[in-house]
Amino acid sequence: MNRSVAILDSTLRDGEQGEGLSFTVSDKIKITKLLDELGIHYIEGGWPGSNPKADEYFKLIKKEKLKNARIAAFSSTCRAGRAAKDDENLQHVLGAGTPVVTIFGKTWDMHVTDALKISLKENLRLIDDTVRLLKSHRKEVFFDAEHFFDAYKHNPGYALQSLLAAQEAGADLLVLCDTNGGTLPEEIQKIVGAVKERTAAPLGIHTHNDAETAVAGALAAVRAGAVHVQGTINGYGERCGNANLCSIIPALQLKTGHKVLSAKKLAELTQTAHHISEIANLPPNNQAAYVGHSAFAHKAGVHVSAVRKNPATYEHIDPALVGNKQRVLISELSGVSNLLYKAKTLGLNLTKEDPATRQILQKIKELEHCGYHFEEGEASLELLLKRMLGRHQPLFELVSFHVANEKFTGEQMQVEATVKIKVKGREVHTVADGNGPVSALGRALRKALSSEHPGVKNISLSDYRVRVLDGASGTEAKVRVIIQSRDLEKTWGTVGVSTDVIEASWHALVDSIEYGLLK
Amino acid sequence: MNRSVAILDSTLRDGEQGEGLSFTVSDKIKITKLLDELGIHYIEGGWPGSNPKADEYFKLIKKEKLKNARIAAFSSTCRAGRAAKDDENLQHVLGAGTPVVTIFGKTWDMHVTDALKISLKENLRLIDDTVRLLKSHRKEVFFDAEHFFDAYKHNPGYALQSLLAAQEAGADLLVLCDTNGGTLPEEIQKIVGAVKERTAAPLGIHTHNDAETAVAGALAAVRAGAVHVQGTINGYGERCGNANLCSIIPALQLKTGHKVLSAKKLAELTQTAHHISEIANLPPNNQAAYVGHSAFAHKAGVHVSAVRKNPATYEHIDPALVGNKQRVLISELSGVSNLLYKAKTLGLNLTKEDPATRQILQKIKELEHCGYHFEEGEASLELLLKRMLGRHQPLFELVSFHVANEKFTGEQMQVEATVKIKVKGREVHTVADGNGPVSALGRALRKALSSEHPGVKNISLSDYRVRVLDGASGTEAKVRVIIQSRDLEKTWGTVGVSTDVIEASWHALVDSIEYGLLK
Repeated sequence: MNRSVAILDSTLRDGEQGEGLSFTVSDKIKITKLLDELGIHYIEGGWPGSNPKADEYFKLIKKEKLKNARIAAFSSTCRAGRAAKDDENLQHVLGAGTPVVTIFGKTWDMHVTDALKISLKENLRLIDDTVRLLKSHRKEVFFDAEHFFDAYKHNPGYALQSLLAAQEAGADLLVLCDTNGGTLPEEIQKIVGAVKERTAAPLGIHTHNDAETAVAGALAAVRAGAVHVQGTINGYGERCGNANLCSIIPALQLKTGHKVLSAKKLAELTQTAHHISEIANLPPNNQAAYVGHSAFAHKAGVHVSAVRKNPATYEHIDPALVGNKQRVLISELSGVSNLLYKAKTLGLNLTKEDPATRQILQKIKELEHCGYHFEEGEASLELLLKRMLGRHQPLFELVSFHVANEKFTGEQMQVEATVKIKVKGREVHTVADGNGPVSALGRALRKALSSEHPGVKNISLSDYRVRVLDGASGTEAKVRVIIQSRDLEKTWGTVGVSTDVIEASWHALVDSIEYGLLK
Repeated sequence: MNRSVAILDSTLRDGEQGEGLSFTVSDKIKITKLLDELGIHYIEGGWPGSNPKADEYFKLIKKEKLKNARIAAFSSTCRAGRAAKDDENLQHVLGAGTPVVTIFGKTWDMHVTDALKISLKENLRLIDDTVRLLKSHRKEVFFDAEHFFDAYKHNPGYALQSLLAAQEAGADLLVLCDTNGGTLPEEIQKIVGAVKERTAAPLGIHTHNDAETAVAGALAAVRAGAVHVQGTINGYGERCGNANLCSIIPALQLKTGHKVLSAKKLAELTQTAHHISEIANLPPNNQAAYVGHSAFAHKAGVHVSAVRKNPATYEHIDPALVGNKQRVLISELSGVSNLLYKAKTLGLNLTKEDPATRQILQKIKELEHCGYHFEEGEASLELLLKRMLGRHQPLFELVSFHVANEKFTGEQMQVEATVKIKVKGREVHTVADGNGPVSALGRALRKALSSEHPGVKNISLSDYRVRVLDGASGTEAKVRVIIQSRDLEKTWGTVGVSTDVIEASWHALVDSIEYGLLK
């Protein structure tokens, strides 16, 4: 594909600096394959020699056949007073055996004299020597000019000299980094434009989100002539994160006429972003532009009736282009038209005039008032609608359950759950242990259902979340449990609310299984 | 204060359209007071007549004495074929009795003819008639030009005509709305500039974050001459949210020389943002620019040693200006200098050479590997350091605990917890019930400690969160419990990990009480 802007993903390097993020080597390999599959051009895998994980990654990734991406190792210019060829860090970089190397160096005079405590001239020597060494090993070399925008504002002459040192030593790309993330897009555009007039090598841009303008900053740089953008998936990164590739790629491709990915791959963006947040074990940001679960979700009644007629009224792009989809939210604010839309997608025949419609809305309102939250528990909402419309036959009736947890110091926690239910008129009484009370309850319930409903064995719980609803009163307060379940084909969310976490979990668990067996 | 850009906060109106958000009337009053206290100039409280909550709010807010803010009611232009004075919606607006009214109207020809199904001329009449009616009641009238940027791109002549209709009818402000959030900042700047040449009334800007560029878009409009910015606290709002005032205000004031709030009030921004997220019962976004918990948090070892010498090396502004602060994260990646910094802030004497330093780092690494996450459980980390340095005397020893949960269909869940501990050599055995297992355990433990440690009664749990660590295996997997606690003076976070939610909660609970009684 004829690409006009290249993307370097730094999720595995700069992204991992984000609070709460820590990848295993196997996570890093998985993410590399996902990014490669998506069509990302460069993947920065880590800093060789900085920790054993990075070295292990580079060893393993060499064995993978990648389709699109070139792997980059990251490192700094060599140490002062030392030849690049004798620098231990650079030995590690060469040992990593990547086709691409990203080297960061100082361009801000103050950092050179005050932090490195070396002369301005010696810093230029470090840049020159490092780039030349790597080029002599036939690497594709990207020079990351750390703090470039602050550097340029303080001393444009020296900042440019540093870039030119890298260029003359043969760097393939000069990447202007807004390391502290504080430069506004307008200023980025101006400075990139000025640099472009004085340099010959292609320019790249690396922004951070400390002013919530990293995406706009990267786009401004491209407007001024940058042909390479660095960022991370979901905007992961230290402090406020790196520039979010999940927003930059669609803007470049759908709004400014650049070619980045194939249309087919762009339509996998949402899925890839969610998959990587699963690997990162961080909840996806629902509000995320383009790929967020809420990005095309409509709640205001007036919006819902408009998008039902013409999606372009409240959607800036067709969500399918990035693999996302339109959703309509049901809440006490949302009104009848959202409920009707929902019922229709569920194949339920409901009209505005139907008295059931009013009753269902009233019930939703009551339950939301108690703390239910159907936006995250859509399967529970579907069961509720079907129950109220007499379209649902419950799988069983509860008689009782009992969970006992016991801990003696120094010993493992012991948990036992018993469940007594009626299935098709027959009483079934089962007991199970588990790693915890909800797992024990779930096992006992499955055991009780397994002879009548063998499909229960295909349902597994993929996420379990608990949130206190009234922050003021801690463990005395009501809790909401959200369970995400999956079977061989799909995933679904259910919700339960109670002051008791076990009872709330029970409700979400029952809905999870009822819904799973319905399909 | 001589202000150059006015701020309208729409958290209570457009913000509440965000997924997962629902304010009670008392929430809305609390938020209004917080925003007024902060110095926000206009607060849009809701759409009179749209639901009972909005009307109740306007009734109650009239009784409050506000220091800075003027309250705005939101509504649409009157219905087609009807005089404004006979329009029911506008009667509600006048009934709300606010000094300011925001009126949205159509400016996109296609919306007029296809959605409203009226003539272009009739739409101009609606705008004119509505604005004139409100002006005749001496309201300050803001005309929100819905979909203005899309309108202008399709038919600049008609879009301008609509604005001029509002201007000629006496509107005090013309607000250009990027309703679908898809217009990039450069285009916003160009269009605002073009409109400014053709209009006399002051211009405002209202952006949404669907392209992750809402903040940059608002700043671009100000650069082009807008003097009024609309947004929401924490960027709440439908789909990807509205423009985030918590990022716009500091950028205007600290980076582009505009006066918005007093410096003293700007330093309360972080606190206000967090308070409002508490009221909204949504977890604050840690990565948020300026006000996020991670916004000035450093993890990379090389960053930490640099910011310890000079914060400006990796901080774009002094965090104190917005009421935030620098943090240093401890993790397996972070290295010795982060640990030493942490120890120092805790008043613990630890040096690089100390063998304890290595041991502690090793222990942190092991625990993080098991799923502990000290970034959110800093009190647990402090206890860990003190325990390992022999500086902590445990309050008690656990002998055993037992929790029983029982549910009979149709009856309330029953929970009973017993705790046997040794306090100062004496065995204490207590029992308590509770709303749930963790509350029962907490009560039994407090009961057991209360005679020796009466201070335990001042400690309360303000948040309780549970997260499954390994998404693949649901309730069988390890869970991490985070408990936020508070006493009369401060709040702290503790963490516990186990496959059993009760056991994990127990660990976090014990740390919570140990830490609370230490202080």
